[in-house]
Amino acid sequence: MLNGTPLVSIISAGMSKFQKHDGLLAREIFTMAAQEAFARCPKLEPKQDIKTMFIGHMGEAYEHQGHMGSILADWTGLLGIPATRCEAACGSSGAALRAGIYAVMSGLADVVMVGGVEKMTNRSTAEVTEYLAMASDYPFEQYHGITFPGIYALMATRHMHDYGTKEEHFAMAAVKNHYHASLNPKAHMQKEITVETVMNSRYVAWPLKLYDCSLVTDGASCIILTKPELAAKYTDNPVHIVGSGQASDSIGLYERKSFTSIESTKTAAKAAYEMAQLSPQDINLAEVHDCFTSAELVAYEDLGFCDPGESGKLLENNQTSLGGRIPVNTSGGLKAKGHPVGATGTAQVYEIYLQLTGQAERRQVKDAKIGLTHNVGGSGATATVHIYRSAQ
Amino acid sequence: MLNGTPLVSIISAGMSKFQKHDGLLAREIFTMAAQEAFARCPKLEPKQDIKTMFIGHMGEAYEHQGHMGSILADWTGLLGIPATRCEAACGSSGAALRAGIYAVMSGLADVVMVGGVEKMTNRSTAEVTEYLAMASDYPFEQYHGITFPGIYALMATRHMHDYGTKEEHFAMAAVKNHYHASLNPKAHMQKEITVETVMNSRYVAWPLKLYDCSLVTDGASCIILTKPELAAKYTDNPVHIVGSGQASDSIGLYERKSFTSIESTKTAAKAAYEMAQLSPQDINLAEVHDCFTSAELVAYEDLGFCDPGESGKLLENNQTSLGGRIPVNTSGGLKAKGHPVGATGTAQVYEIYLQLTGQAERRQVKDAKIGLTHNVGGSGATATVHIYRSAQ
Repeated sequence: MLNGTPLVSIISAGMSKFQKHDGLLAREIFTMAAQEAFARCPKLEPKQDIKTMFIGHMGEAYEHQGHMGSILADWTGLLGIPATRCEAACGSSGAALRAGIYAVMSGLADVVMVGGVEKMTNRSTAEVTEYLAMASDYPFEQYHGITFPGIYALMATRHMHDYGTKEEHFAMAAVKNHYHASLNPKAHMQKEITVETVMNSRYVAWPLKLYDCSLVTDGASCIILTKPELAAKYTDNPVHIVGSGQASDSIGLYERKSFTSIESTKTAAKAAYEMAQLSPQDINLAEVHDCFTSAELVAYEDLGFCDPGESGKLLENNQTSLGGRIPVNTSGGLKAKGHPVGATGTAQVYEIYLQLTGQAERRQVKDAKIGLTHNVGGSGATATVHIYRSAQ
Repeated sequence: MLNGTPLVSIISAGMSKFQKHDGLLAREIFTMAAQEAFARCPKLEPKQDIKTMFIGHMGEAYEHQGHMGSILADWTGLLGIPATRCEAACGSSGAALRAGIYAVMSGLADVVMVGGVEKMTNRSTAEVTEYLAMASDYPFEQYHGITFPGIYALMATRHMHDYGTKEEHFAMAAVKNHYHASLNPKAHMQKEITVETVMNSRYVAWPLKLYDCSLVTDGASCIILTKPELAAKYTDNPVHIVGSGQASDSIGLYERKSFTSIESTKTAAKAAYEMAQLSPQDINLAEVHDCFTSAELVAYEDLGFCDPGESGKLLENNQTSLGGRIPVNTSGGLKAKGHPVGATGTAQVYEIYLQLTGQAERRQVKDAKIGLTHNVGGSGATATVHIYRSAQ
């Protein structure tokens, strides 16, 4: 539809360290991300230039605090601008990005801040599990006691049954992402692990073990968008968004046609590829939604990086590791960088921004020109896929 | 900026009855609104035409259910489309409307559904009070025990002190809105009251009494937007949105310069009037955010319907009643139609749509051409103001 021309351009990005931020509120963590984004783009005058803000924030319960859009406008020094919270479960800031793209393209807001934040570690594991469960279906899932590890375990089990995928394949995704995280100073986890570490960890919901699960983390991320024709005013090194897709699916697994793929990912990817006039073979690197290791395998297939059932082989052959054909989750992913749920979508964009502008340091993908992000809400009732092109 | 030309056009609208909907989930209540909007516009093929959806939904806690965007896409037969929940407290669906305007104007989505829903009456008064409080500041308001009646009482008290406003003036707003509600078959309250009814009701937070407070209600509302140049394809009788403003302010009252006005309302109104190239004198009728009767008085002043401190006189002279100079809250308002928080913003639009298309029956404002809606989040950390023009 848009012939691969840029929809909008990213002129800056920021991210807090993902970790346990004891004693800090979400608003304080978000300012770390905003301050980095502002410092990285000295030609931007935030208070004067930024016209609107969309913020991904998943849960009111963690801090007993809703209305996060306006709070973050205030705490980032932008008080007065329109500021709206978007919520689509763990896909909240991917949805905020989509809303920000609309805003820039509308002509009503030339510079837009998009981001996300979550403060989770102040709560017990039981509380976090309960709050996250609000992203699944209350009457037919939550009420009957299933939580997200169980929901994703059902999908993983079916993948094993249909395609012969092994628990060791899931473990390989964890090993890769922990290795990548060890190269990312902002990742929550900083140490490499082995397949044995994963295989010997306790089961959370068979076949998923502790090391197959992403991390409960505190963190924030943000990006600054503008019109492509205005990008040069702010930076010599923008990243263009050339494709955007968002899709919905039934909230509950029980209404899905398939457990081995996520329909919303496929729909969103198709829209993004078409808009960008690119195919999966054109993608140099990607950040995908590995809330559980098994979800990373499914994402490879749904995004077209391999055929259905072939994702295990990509991992066996290190094709998605740094140095491989298409490095995935060079940031460490949700698995090892951490998954402060509302912040995850734009944290993925942050990594792609660093990579496509040559600022990814020890984990830099050589000659990276085209990147992709994939952010999922819940078990796939929401998915967003965005495609990025280096301006260099 | 846009010289009064339409930003987008409303081609249909729907609203559930506002009442206690025992045994129904929010998703079921929303389908009532959607079905009315679809039936009202037979040329619309919802599944084929509607390209995205923004939904105002304030609280996950009521039904232990987040991720409402995708759920409502499914329940309205639109499964697959991008669907995002917007949250800005009681201003959630006003913010969703703003996001929907961006989407239409971006060129990425020609027809967009915007709406809101809340299911509240399944919870106790104490629970509702606690959940609503999440829209105020946790560390400096909630934590110390203040809830929304107390917050608005502080503002009302200051208005009385500065301007000599009396409790009876607040009561007049309640009497007017209950009268209007008695003409609206979809309003929660259907009976007229007197100033004595209000004055004799028990204090909730001095000077606000039970009859000064809006209603805890279940309900849903939605509107269908398209580009002005496409409106004729769907209807002979669209309503154009000619002005849109949204603004933020500090979450807590303690940082405000004034207690007698809401800065975000004034900022949003200024933006909307400028965009529409209209002034307060041009407005024929308005739906304003009367979460408490005192808030309606403040809104008159912030929106420029009268000078600061003069709102009581408008009520004394019946200028904002049906038949007056500028009828306000002909629907019954939040006070008497009900305030299912996430649904309120687009329910205001629904009323203006009916009025400007001549479908408001017993409460029709004669020769209404220009309308305004004003939706507030919390104590004013968010406000949206939109201005509408009849196409006739």
